[in-house]
Amino acid sequence: MSEHLTEEDIISLITGMLAGQEASPDLLLGPGDDCALFQAEGPLAATTDMLVENIHFSTRYMNFWEIGYRAMAANLSDLAAMGARPRYGLLSLGLAEPPQAGQVKDLLKGMLDLAARHGLLLIGGDTVKAPVLTINLCLLGENPSPLLRSRAEAGDSILVTGPLGLSAAGLACLRQGLRDPVFSSLISAHKLPSPRLAAGQALAASGLAGAVMDISDGLATDLGRLSRSSRVKAVVEAPLLTLGRELRQAAERLNQDPLLWALCGGEDFELLFTCRRQNEKRLVKLLTQSAQVAPYRIGRVEPGSGVYLRRQEDCREISMEGYDHFR
Amino acid sequence: MSEHLTEEDIISLITGMLAGQEASPDLLLGPGDDCALFQAEGPLAATTDMLVENIHFSTRYMNFWEIGYRAMAANLSDLAAMGARPRYGLLSLGLAEPPQAGQVKDLLKGMLDLAARHGLLLIGGDTVKAPVLTINLCLLGENPSPLLRSRAEAGDSILVTGPLGLSAAGLACLRQGLRDPVFSSLISAHKLPSPRLAAGQALAASGLAGAVMDISDGLATDLGRLSRSSRVKAVVEAPLLTLGRELRQAAERLNQDPLLWALCGGEDFELLFTCRRQNEKRLVKLLTQSAQVAPYRIGRVEPGSGVYLRRQEDCREISMEGYDHFR
Repeated sequence: MSEHLTEEDIISLITGMLAGQEASPDLLLGPGDDCALFQAEGPLAATTDMLVENIHFSTRYMNFWEIGYRAMAANLSDLAAMGARPRYGLLSLGLAEPPQAGQVKDLLKGMLDLAARHGLLLIGGDTVKAPVLTINLCLLGENPSPLLRSRAEAGDSILVTGPLGLSAAGLACLRQGLRDPVFSSLISAHKLPSPRLAAGQALAASGLAGAVMDISDGLATDLGRLSRSSRVKAVVEAPLLTLGRELRQAAERLNQDPLLWALCGGEDFELLFTCRRQNEKRLVKLLTQSAQVAPYRIGRVEPGSGVYLRRQEDCREISMEGYDHFR
Repeated sequence: MSEHLTEEDIISLITGMLAGQEASPDLLLGPGDDCALFQAEGPLAATTDMLVENIHFSTRYMNFWEIGYRAMAANLSDLAAMGARPRYGLLSLGLAEPPQAGQVKDLLKGMLDLAARHGLLLIGGDTVKAPVLTINLCLLGENPSPLLRSRAEAGDSILVTGPLGLSAAGLACLRQGLRDPVFSSLISAHKLPSPRLAAGQALAASGLAGAVMDISDGLATDLGRLSRSSRVKAVVEAPLLTLGRELRQAAERLNQDPLLWALCGGEDFELLFTCRRQNEKRLVKLLTQSAQVAPYRIGRVEPGSGVYLRRQEDCREISMEGYDHFR
């Protein structure tokens, strides 16, 4: 195939790759016609995410396989936050000219590799020309639970499923060209995040979760959304935020505040959730055993509003410090 | 609201507008959380389309309401081609900086006005920054039929649900600044296409349709896809292509070939379908009565491959002349 692709070539390339996915008896019609058709039974969860080159990722420090993988991970994370089982996805691809067969193949491969691991099939899509690489995924998941943002109550513990700020630190390392192997875990946290699907399903099955959401825009912003939805105040205890050795080392090398990465760095794709104080230990144990995550408490829900950070004597509002795509 | 919007402002603006939609008992959770949740029963059709500023539309001659309307129409047209009943949609919006509240409102209003007319609810979405306005819709429809592109057979009649080339002519008028009222019907064909949902549902219910698809990239390209899927030859009779008075007048004024608009101009969003010759009259009558369209035959399916145009003695292949987004 020539490197200069027509729209028809790209459609053939993509439908060829999608045809290599595992078959599903519920899929009545796969890619290649005006719509895909599938058999649905019961409640479905639907989510969509758009990722734009030079805003959400850069080809300067991500290869196309990684870009595809990460786009799929970001979308799967929303299904995780509803405890849903991933089923179907539709992909829209805006490609800058001239589209390159190798890049499109790698991008799709990255998506399909992660999708297959979680039982998701790409069943359709659209391919257009765009000024920069633009990826839109729309995913559907089965058997979701209403794990809402609005269910936090005063007295609840606030937990996350893993360390925060690693992705932001990894991105900073990539941007500054820090390739020391000591920072590999940060870089891979940025490039290859793990959507917490098993944890979301375990939270749903436990019946012990209060509010649940994923952290895509940073703890400060997303906990702000949770507190607004639940009409409560969220207080994060700074000493409880796990600032691992690599994170602190990278912060020192780059003259950054690691706490700021943990609070405001987006795209960790961990789950943020609350539960009654008396259920905390049981829920942590359950998630650790069944979902291979190590959740920990980062704070407490109180009556009131806003997100606060407590550091020894100091307790200040941080709601507005989060990462905002438009700032 | 200030004209300078943060991401949070835009999310509020959009979720506020979506909250104004009619309620549905099957919608378990609307916009505002990680996923939307809905109750599904039976087969669903899913489709997605991305529209990019300066490639698929221009704000120079379309207002934001029209851009929103047209994006929704293009996507609904794919559901029409499966005879599906529109139900749910997810919208991703890539906005150039700085996002303007008025523009976002108008865009959403255009989408919601057409969506409401066809019973579709927007239940979720994503808002990001992008170099140019980028709109992705993913739609789900109920009760689809497998109206495939691959079901044309030699001997079949080839029909379309309405005149072709109007949208391309309207776009040419807009680009050349032809605002003479005589061209209003062409301009409105471009700006406000009507997705043929009733016609698609009637085709499905009739049981008389062979291959069915919508014409989004122009007759030559889309009939090429149909003929490849069905492994047949499609012969279009030039005299049967309805070239209306406005189309011919615009072509004369702009020194264009109106036949080329009809063959290669995309985005008419009419349905293209085949049926056995003996069912043609019955099907035309049925669609005319039940779906307020005026379908007509444009050619015939023959054994072989490729798309041909017959003009008196001359019969030549036109498969590759269609509009290609990447050329």
